[in-house]
Amino acid sequence: MNKGFRVGIVGATGYVGVELVRLLSSHPFFRLTRLVSQSYAGKPFSEIYPAFNRVVDSLLSDLDIDRIASDCDLAITALPHGVSASVVPQLLDRGVRVLDHSGDFRYRRVEVYEQAYQLRHPCPALLAEAVYGLPEIYRDEIAKARLVANPGCYPTCALLALKPLLQAGVISTEGIVVDAVSGVSGAGRKADLAYSFCEQDASFKAYGVIGHRHTSEIEQGAGFLAGLPQPPLVTFTPHLAPMKRGMLATVYADLLPGTDASTLQEIFAQAYKEEPFIRFLSGGQLPETRSVLGTNYADLSVFPDGRTNKVKILSAIDNLGKGAAGQAVQALNLMAGLKETSGLEIPGFAI
Amino acid sequence: MNKGFRVGIVGATGYVGVELVRLLSSHPFFRLTRLVSQSYAGKPFSEIYPAFNRVVDSLLSDLDIDRIASDCDLAITALPHGVSASVVPQLLDRGVRVLDHSGDFRYRRVEVYEQAYQLRHPCPALLAEAVYGLPEIYRDEIAKARLVANPGCYPTCALLALKPLLQAGVISTEGIVVDAVSGVSGAGRKADLAYSFCEQDASFKAYGVIGHRHTSEIEQGAGFLAGLPQPPLVTFTPHLAPMKRGMLATVYADLLPGTDASTLQEIFAQAYKEEPFIRFLSGGQLPETRSVLGTNYADLSVFPDGRTNKVKILSAIDNLGKGAAGQAVQALNLMAGLKETSGLEIPGFAI
Amino acid sequence: MNKGFRVGIVGATGYVGVELVRLLSSHPFFRLTRLVSQSYAGKPFSEIYPAFNRVVDSLLSDLDIDRIASDCDLAITALPHGVSASVVPQLLDRGVRVLDHSGDFRYRRVEVYEQAYQLRHPCPALLAEAVYGLPEIYRDEIAKARLVANPGCYPTCALLALKPLLQAGVISTEGIVVDAVSGVSGAGRKADLAYSFCEQDASFKAYGVIGHRHTSEIEQGAGFLAGLPQPPLVTFTPHLAPMKRGMLATVYADLLPGTDASTLQEIFAQAYKEEPFIRFLSGGQLPETRSVLGTNYADLSVFPDGRTNKVKILSAIDNLGKGAAGQAVQALNLMAGLKETSGLEIPGFAI
Amino acid sequence: MNKGFRVGIVGATGYVGVELVRLLSSHPFFRLTRLVSQSYAGKPFSEIYPAFNRVVDSLLSDLDIDRIASDCDLAITALPHGVSASVVPQLLDRGVRVLDHSGDFRYRRVEVYEQAYQLRHPCPALLAEAVYGLPEIYRDEIAKARLVANPGCYPTCALLALKPLLQAGVISTEGIVVDAVSGVSGAGRKADLAYSFCEQDASFKAYGVIGHRHTSEIEQGAGFLAGLPQPPLVTFTPHLAPMKRGMLATVYADLLPGTDASTLQEIFAQAYKEEPFIRFLSGGQLPETRSVLGTNYADLSVFPDGRTNKVKILSAIDNLGKGAAGQAVQALNLMAGLKETSGLEIPGFAI
Repeated sequence: MNKGFRVGIVGATGYVGVELVRLLSSHPFFRLTRLVSQSYAGKPFSEIYPAFNRVVDSLLSDLDIDRIASDCDLAITALPHGVSASVVPQLLDRGVRVLDHSGDFRYRRVEVYEQAYQLRHPCPALLAEAVYGLPEIYRDEIAKARLVANPGCYPTCALLALKPLLQAGVISTEGIVVDAVSGVSGAGRKADLAYSFCEQDASFKAYGVIGHRHTSEIEQGAGFLAGLPQPPLVTFTPHLAPMKRGMLATVYADLLPGTDASTLQEIFAQAYKEEPFIRFLSGGQLPETRSVLGTNYADLSVFPDGRTNKVKILSAIDNLGKGAAGQAVQALNLMAGLKETSGLEIPGFAI
Repeated sequence: MNKGFRVGIVGATGYVGVELVRLLSSHPFFRLTRLVSQSYAGKPFSEIYPAFNRVVDSLLSDLDIDRIASDCDLAITALPHGVSASVVPQLLDRGVRVLDHSGDFRYRRVEVYEQAYQLRHPCPALLAEAVYGLPEIYRDEIAKARLVANPGCYPTCALLALKPLLQAGVISTEGIVVDAVSGVSGAGRKADLAYSFCEQDASFKAYGVIGHRHTSEIEQGAGFLAGLPQPPLVTFTPHLAPMKRGMLATVYADLLPGTDASTLQEIFAQAYKEEPFIRFLSGGQLPETRSVLGTNYADLSVFPDGRTNKVKILSAIDNLGKGAAGQAVQALNLMAGLKETSGLEIPGFAI
Repeated sequence: MNKGFRVGIVGATGYVGVELVRLLSSHPFFRLTRLVSQSYAGKPFSEIYPAFNRVVDSLLSDLDIDRIASDCDLAITALPHGVSASVVPQLLDRGVRVLDHSGDFRYRRVEVYEQAYQLRHPCPALLAEAVYGLPEIYRDEIAKARLVANPGCYPTCALLALKPLLQAGVISTEGIVVDAVSGVSGAGRKADLAYSFCEQDASFKAYGVIGHRHTSEIEQGAGFLAGLPQPPLVTFTPHLAPMKRGMLATVYADLLPGTDASTLQEIFAQAYKEEPFIRFLSGGQLPETRSVLGTNYADLSVFPDGRTNKVKILSAIDNLGKGAAGQAVQALNLMAGLKETSGLEIPGFAI
Repeated sequence: MNKGFRVGIVGATGYVGVELVRLLSSHPFFRLTRLVSQSYAGKPFSEIYPAFNRVVDSLLSDLDIDRIASDCDLAITALPHGVSASVVPQLLDRGVRVLDHSGDFRYRRVEVYEQAYQLRHPCPALLAEAVYGLPEIYRDEIAKARLVANPGCYPTCALLALKPLLQAGVISTEGIVVDAVSGVSGAGRKADLAYSFCEQDASFKAYGVIGHRHTSEIEQGAGFLAGLPQPPLVTFTPHLAPMKRGMLATVYADLLPGTDASTLQEIFAQAYKEEPFIRFLSGGQLPETRSVLGTNYADLSVFPDGRTNKVKILSAIDNLGKGAAGQAVQALNLMAGLKETSGLEIPGFAI
C-alpha cells in the first residue's frame, strides 16, 4: 500500500494521542511521521506505552514547528485548551493542515468560547475558517478544510442523538435534557488523586453539574441543526462511571404537537441510512458502551413515550473513539480524499 | 443487651436477604430467629455466603408459616413479586407483623399494581392497610403498622430527591425526569448470562427504558408529596453501571414561576434537618455512591440552573442499603419502638 | 486482496469463537465462510454480539459436516472437551483440515488425556498425527499438519516462560512452580452464578488447586523442551482475577549448579530474538496484562534471585489472544503458507 | 458503654488511617480523641472522606506531641517508613503507648531493617523492646507492650499460612515460595499516575519482584516459627490485582520426608482451633478475598500434593483489615486488656 499521506501528532502520549497512534499505525494510507511529546521527548513511544513494543517504537520529539512542517502534510494537535490556539496558527502559517482536539476552534462566536473556557482567544479570526469536525453534519466542509476542530465527546454523543429529530422539526428546542455518562479516560492522563483507582472504582457520581463547557458546544450544534438564529438552552449533566472507556447519553425532549410518535423510528432510520458509522438499533434494542469500544461507531435508539409526550434517545460511543480519535481519523480520511471508512472498519472487543 | 425482638427473614439468601442478615446479625436489639431459603434449606447460611463463617452459621429452613409464627415477632419477606402476595396474608393471619420487600403491597390502587406488574393481586384488601415504608414520609404510620411495604430502590432514591421541592410547591409536577443508575446487585442473585462478569464489566447501558415498574411507584409517591388527587406523569430511565452496589438519581424539574432559586438550598436544609439518614450536601459538594456504600444514608444535593429555569437534584444511596435492607431495618426500628437509628449508625467503606 | 482461504468456525459464539471472528473478519487473506452455533442457528452473528453490527452480520448455522466440507478449506473447532473428539474425525474424513481448541488432541499419550479429562478418547489414533499448535516449538510441523491442537491458555503462558531455560539446560526440571492468574473470560460464556458480576467483581481467588487439567499439558510440554523421556512433575495453581481478559504466570525454578545467573537474560534474548510474537522485556521491565490485551503477543521477563538460587519468570498473554484465538490465527497462517504475522500485527488497547 | 480508653491516630487520612477510624469510631470501648493529619489539619475528617459525614466530623489536627500525650492513652502511628522512627520515641517518652504501622520497629536486627529499607535507624535500642504485633504469635507480649509494631500485610498473610506447618516441623524451611496478590489500596493514597484508574483497571502485574522489603519480614517470622537461629531464605513475589482491597497468598513448601500428608488438615485445624480470627476452611473450600473484606478474618486452606510432595497453603485477608487496621485493633484490645474481639465481630460485605 502506498502510505503517502504524512501525519504528525502533537500531544501523542495523552489518552487521545495514544488512541490516535493505535488507529493511525494500522491505517492503510496514512504514515505517522512525527510524534510530539513535550514530557517524553527523546524516548520511544513504546517506552511510555509498552503495548506498542514492536508496533510503534518511534522516538517522541519536542515541539518543533519547522520540523513538523517539513515532515507532515497534516498535524493533529491533542493539546490542552488554550495551548492549541497558540500552536495551530504557526502550523497553518507553514502550510500544514490541522485537525485540532481542543475546544479552541469549535465555536463560531468567540464570546461563547471565552465564556465557556474562561480564556482570551488569541486568534479569533480563525474561528470563521475552522470547520466543526462532525462528518455527519459537515462532511463536505471537512473535506476541503485547512483547519478542523474535532468535536467534544459529549457534544458528539448528544448531537448525533438530536440530529434526526431536530432536523425533522418534531421536537421542541426548549427543555432538552442531556444526561450523559463517561468512562474515566475522559479526564485525561494525569497524576491526580481524584482519578486514582481507589477513589474511582466501584463508584458513580455526577460532576460539572452547572456550567460544564460542553453545554455551550451542544447548544451551538443544536441551534444549527434546528436552523435557529440563536442556540437553544440545553440542560446537560455529565457523570463518571467506573470504567476506562465508553460514553452513553440519554437525551430527553418534548415531542411537538401533531407529531406521530410512530414515525420517530422511521425518521431515525432515514436520517442515518447512509451513514457508515451510525448504527441505528430498532426493535427495542438498547445501546451498550461495550459494543462500541475501540471503534468509531455510534449506536443509537429512540423511544417515544406516549404517556408523557416525551422522547428518549440513547446514544453510545467510545469517548476515545467516535468521541475523539476515531472521529479524527474519519475527518482525516475526508481531508485526504480517502474513503471515509479507511482504517476504521474494525470490530470492537465484544468481550 | 436484651435482644428481645425476634425477626425472621423469608428469602435470606438473595442479595437483599444477605444484606439484611449482615445488618440484623449485629443489631443491638433484634434477634434473627429464622432464616428461610427454599433453595438451600438445611444448609448453614455461611455455606452460601462464606463471609459469614463464625458470624452467622444458623441453618436455613424451609418456608413453614407455623414455625415462623411461633419463632418470630416480625417476618421480613424478600421474595419475588407475586410470591409475596401469597405468603404475607398467611403470616398476618397468624399474628406476625410483616415487612415485605416486593412490589405487592406498595400501591394504594390495585389497578396501578396490576398494570405495572402484569399480575392479578390475590388480596387487594390488604393494600388499604399496608404502609409504604419510607420513614421520611410515613414515619408514624410505619410505627403502628401490621404490614409495611418496603419501597423500591429507585422510588426511594427519587422520592427523597423530590420531597422538599414538591412539598414546598416550587417545582412543576409536570415534566419531571428521573435519570438513575444502579449497581448490578439490583438485578438480584441469579445465574443469568446477561449479568455475568464478562457481559457487565466495563460497560454501561440503559434498560427498561419504557414502562419500568418503578415509574408508577415514583408517580404515586410524587402525587402524594405534591398533594395531588392524581399522580403526575414522570419520565424515568434506569441504567446499569459496572459496580456491585450503589445508586445515583439525577432528577430534573422545572421551577415554577416566582421561585427564587436561591431559596432551594434552604428548602432542602430545612426539610431534612431532623432526618437522621439524609445528608444534605451544600456548598457545591456532589454525592458519590461510594460514600453511602453499606449504609442507610442518602446523600443529596440541589442545583438550580438559572439559565434554563430547571433544577437538578442529585441523590445517592446504596441500592441494598437505603434502597432495600437498610431502609427495612430503619422501619423495623420504628415498628419495634426502638430508636430509629439503632444498628444503623455505621460508617460506610470510604475505600 | 485475494481472500482465498476459506475458514469455518464451529462454536462461533463462545468467547474464543467471538475473538476468532474478530481477528479473522479483518484478516487480509482468510475468508469466514461458515459460522456454526448450535444454540443460535439461524440468527445473525451480530444479534448475539451487537459489537459486530455491520461488521459480521452473517447467519449462524447448524453443525452440518457436509456443508462445512464444501464451504471451507479449514475448520476451527471451538467446542467443549469430548465433543471435539467426535466432530473432528468427520471433518478430517471429508478432507477438511482442522484446528481444534479443546484438550482432545493435545496429548501424545492417550492415558494422560483420559486421566486429566476423565473421558474415554474415541479416536486415539489421531493423537499420533495431531500437532501441538505452539508455533514457538512446532512451527514446521504446524505448517504441514492436517490436525492442529491449539494449546491451552495456561500451558501456552507457562511453556513460553520455561522454554529458553529448559532448552539451555540451566534449570532443574524438578520443583518447578507455575502460579498463574486468568481473567474471567477463561471460564467461558455461560449462565453460571459463580461467574456473575456480583460474585466475581472486586475479589481474587485460586481454583482447581489440585489436579487442574492444564498441569499435565504443561508437564508434557516441559518434558519435550527438556528432552526428557518422562515429563517432569510441575506444581501448578490457577487463580481468577476480577478482569475480563488477560493472564499472567509467575514461574519459579531452581537454577542448576554452575549456572551463571548473569547469563539468563542473554539466554532469553537469544531464544526469542527471531520470534515475532514474543517480546522479551529486559532492563527490569515487568509484563502487565493490559499491554497484551487483544493481541497475540507474549511479554516475558526473567529475574534470577542470587539469594535463593531460584529464577522467576514472568509471562503475560491475553488468554483469548496468544492463549486461544490469536495463537490459532498464527497457526492458521502457517497452515495456509502465509506470513506468520498476517492479520496479527495490531497493537493492543493501551487504555 | 464506658468508652474509657483514649486513642489518637497520627496519619488519619491515609487508607490505613481511614480504616482505623472506621473500626474505632464504632468500637465499644475506645474513644478517638485525636486525629492527626499534616496535610489536612484544621479540616473535618468527613471533608476528606464524605462517607464519614455525621459519623466522624472531628477536626484533623497538626502533629503536636504534647497534645497527644495529654489527650491519648495510646497513639497509633500510620506514617511513612522512617518518619515513624522519629515520632514514636517522642510519644513513648511522654508515657504514651504506641502501635506503629511502619516497618521501623518490626525487626529484631537493625541491620536487616537498614538493608531492607535503605534507611539509617535513629533509635535501634527500641527494637529490643518493640513487640511484633501478630497476636497469633505474640499475644501475651502484645498485651504488656509499650510499643507494638503492626506487621506488614504480606508478612501477616504469609506467616499465618506458614505457622502451623513450620511449628509442626513438617515442611522444609528451604525453598519456600510465597506468591501473593494485593488490592491497589496497598500502595497507599497518593496522586500517582501509576495508580490511576485507567492504568490499573482490567490489568494484572507483578511488582517488586526482587528485593521487596516484606521478604525480610517474612523470613524473620518464619525463622522464629521454625525455631531457627538464622531466618530461612524465602522467595516472595507480590502482584497487583484490579480491586481496591483484598490479599491472597499462595504459599508453596516442600513436605519433609516422613510427613503423612493426611495429617496436614489436622495440624491446621488444631493450630487454629482457638484463634478467633482464623477461619480454617476444610473440605476443599477455597478462600476468596471478598469473604474477608472489611473484617479482621484470615481465611486459610491447605492442600498437600501427593504427586510433587509439596504443600500449597492459601491465605486470604483484607490488606486493610487483618493486614493493617483490623490487626491493629486486635492488638489494641489486648493492650487495653479487653476481649480480643471487641469491635471486630462484624461480618464483611458478602456482596
